[in-house]
Amino acid sequence: MVVYRRLRGMRDYLPEDVKKLNYVKSIVRELFRLFGYKEVMTPTLESFDLLAAKSGEEIRHRMYAFTDLGGRKVALRPEMTASIARFYVNNLRGYSKPIRLGYIANCFRYDEPQYARYREFWQGGFELIGSQLPEADAEIIEIADLLMKKLGFKRYYIKLGHIGILRAILSSELIEESEQNRIFGLMDKGRLSEAIMRLKKLAASPRCVRTISELANLKGYATKDLILKAESIITGYDEAIKHLENLREVLECLKACEVESVILDFGFARGLEYYTGVIFEVFAEGFKLALGGGGRYDRLIELFGGEPTPAVGYAPGLDRIVLAMSELNIPFKFREEIKTYVVPTSNDFKLKLKAIEIAHLLRENDLGVELEVMGRSLRRALSHASARGFTFAIIVGTKEISKGKVVLRDLELNMQYEVTLSEAINIIRNRNKQRLN
Amino acid sequence: MVVYRRLRGMRDYLPEDVKKLNYVKSIVRELFRLFGYKEVMTPTLESFDLLAAKSGEEIRHRMYAFTDLGGRKVALRPEMTASIARFYVNNLRGYSKPIRLGYIANCFRYDEPQYARYREFWQGGFELIGSQLPEADAEIIEIADLLMKKLGFKRYYIKLGHIGILRAILSSELIEESEQNRIFGLMDKGRLSEAIMRLKKLAASPRCVRTISELANLKGYATKDLILKAESIITGYDEAIKHLENLREVLECLKACEVESVILDFGFARGLEYYTGVIFEVFAEGFKLALGGGGRYDRLIELFGGEPTPAVGYAPGLDRIVLAMSELNIPFKFREEIKTYVVPTSNDFKLKLKAIEIAHLLRENDLGVELEVMGRSLRRALSHASARGFTFAIIVGTKEISKGKVVLRDLELNMQYEVTLSEAINIIRNRNKQRLN
Repeated sequence: MVVYRRLRGMRDYLPEDVKKLNYVKSIVRELFRLFGYKEVMTPTLESFDLLAAKSGEEIRHRMYAFTDLGGRKVALRPEMTASIARFYVNNLRGYSKPIRLGYIANCFRYDEPQYARYREFWQGGFELIGSQLPEADAEIIEIADLLMKKLGFKRYYIKLGHIGILRAILSSELIEESEQNRIFGLMDKGRLSEAIMRLKKLAASPRCVRTISELANLKGYATKDLILKAESIITGYDEAIKHLENLREVLECLKACEVESVILDFGFARGLEYYTGVIFEVFAEGFKLALGGGGRYDRLIELFGGEPTPAVGYAPGLDRIVLAMSELNIPFKFREEIKTYVVPTSNDFKLKLKAIEIAHLLRENDLGVELEVMGRSLRRALSHASARGFTFAIIVGTKEISKGKVVLRDLELNMQYEVTLSEAINIIRNRNKQRLN
Repeated sequence: MVVYRRLRGMRDYLPEDVKKLNYVKSIVRELFRLFGYKEVMTPTLESFDLLAAKSGEEIRHRMYAFTDLGGRKVALRPEMTASIARFYVNNLRGYSKPIRLGYIANCFRYDEPQYARYREFWQGGFELIGSQLPEADAEIIEIADLLMKKLGFKRYYIKLGHIGILRAILSSELIEESEQNRIFGLMDKGRLSEAIMRLKKLAASPRCVRTISELANLKGYATKDLILKAESIITGYDEAIKHLENLREVLECLKACEVESVILDFGFARGLEYYTGVIFEVFAEGFKLALGGGGRYDRLIELFGGEPTPAVGYAPGLDRIVLAMSELNIPFKFREEIKTYVVPTSNDFKLKLKAIEIAHLLRENDLGVELEVMGRSLRRALSHASARGFTFAIIVGTKEISKGKVVLRDLELNMQYEVTLSEAINIIRNRNKQRLN
């Protein structure tokens, strides 16, 4: 006899875990509704080439990749943006823009298991496709902000950068995109000095090296002030100046929709290679890991076979959010209805049938009911029901049934009454109402 | 430039598809609540050995199996019962019984793509663990029945059999379990004469061959009558008689909870090898494929390293249900709120900021709003909004803003009014209420 275990780095969600995750999913869906994002679903498996194309070195090597029975090289998605870009190209190219897509999906990475990192994890997502205007970036960031507010986070911030500014500076020095990605990869990991060394090795001009170093140290809450400083640092890099103007407008839009917790960080780079403009991550104070991230990716859809199509998106990490809420004691506001246990007074089969009938009737009245199915004695059944948090038990006995009644036992107050079934239903309903208010 | 495609046999769900699937999921969750099933989640990937142990020959060969980066042989789950049994053994062994678990999960099989069959598909599930009594079987079948009723199916039936009866007869002839499974596999595919031939080859007694043949032809709605006939056919097979008595009691319980559409079929066998008692599948008239199936599996948990633990479960096929509803014109009763479009009269950046602010305020009032983010002219933006089914547009113009007002355009009635924002909110809300009632 073998005792099977779940795979290392994978997770079983107990009922309490699922309730929390489903709660966060429901808030994500509330934002779909408020902002007009239409939920879509893509396959868990995609072709490896699609997923590898722009995922970045690190993710590429941690994908669950294999050859399927038809000889195709496939992989479990490590994130959703590539799938959504493909989805758009395959299904929605002809549609009038903008297109707002939402998703809730599990993703897979073969990372070393550690705190808050599982090999299968849940992401939500918002993708706004078709607009290159700053109000589109702002909308996505507003969503990230509102999600935190609706979940009840009080102290959080959005770390905001702009990869377009950095790319423009390096491009003007004719540094290739793959080299740029390597440098941003180092910056993303906080290894700035290595990034600078690499730049020097590539024979970047001293001015370029100085500009990148100065930008990398420019960060804080005083966004207006920082924009002015950045402007003076990047003077002469015309493309970069245009991107900076975009960033300035995004910040103005964010003010209009009361997004206040922004930390601007000009040295911020994200690991995914497809970003071209604003990039951001969301953090809660007191919790180390990012709760989600996003940014603009104006060239990905083109790369996947569509027309040039600007796009911007946000993917909150749903498991991480659940964990952060638990650790920071932010309450999950789910509604918890009371439960009723139906139990016959003996193992007489006729009486059991009566209990089944009564459970059925209660459910027809929309009440959550569990039936005693273990053949336990009344005493043991009631103590099981108490231990499991049931509020009421309906006791089905021959004597009461012959009078058209049942015994309704209040397991919380430890009292019981002989009542008709419709009286019982009313009492349970009223208690439920009190509980939910 | 490559145009990537989704993998063969996989499916993209457009917004309309997701809405329908989510609707069916919500009804499954309503049944979780009504019957006290606690939702759990297990990893999409499990060890191959676990999934292969009792899945049956056919499924075993169609699994997405591969070796992961750590050298483990793993597979994407082809169904959920093995995972749930493992989940129970790993996490819930000590808990007081019964344990009612629910799930909603995607599963994977490398089947030949065809009508209503995708390589990734969604299943719901109800597993009642710990009870061997007929009321437990009946509860699971009642759930299958109530799901059909709540979804709005009018003409459907539950095909009910009992693998325990068949197993008992073959076991008394000392036919090994693996041989039994092969024979049931043939019966499952409707190849009765091959099954009988195989029985003869195994030197089963003429009486056994006759008994199985006669049982295999015993089916219909007249359950009481059929039970009597079966009793006379299996006379002398004492173990089988006990199982028949169990089936008779299950049918009585089903009557008590108004499950009426049962077709009894004594020759019915399901492809999964872990069943030990009642087995059933649900069909809608006019739709060829089963919409779900289940049964009793009293030895699986033991096999996976737990104590001997009886269990019974049901897994509705959620994609199939969506398809059947669409084909049979059964309406999906989802609530569809009205949508509002917010558009500035010009591309002036200040005006855009005002539009962002107004969209933000509407959402604070819980209204679903989309903002114009394409920089379109007012005329083009309004025609886009009409084409996309928006009910209202809020037009943000300098002149009206200076008076503290906006223009609310009713896109359905083709009228517009100058109103304050709170007036606009009231009008939209009232229309929404009318729509939802």
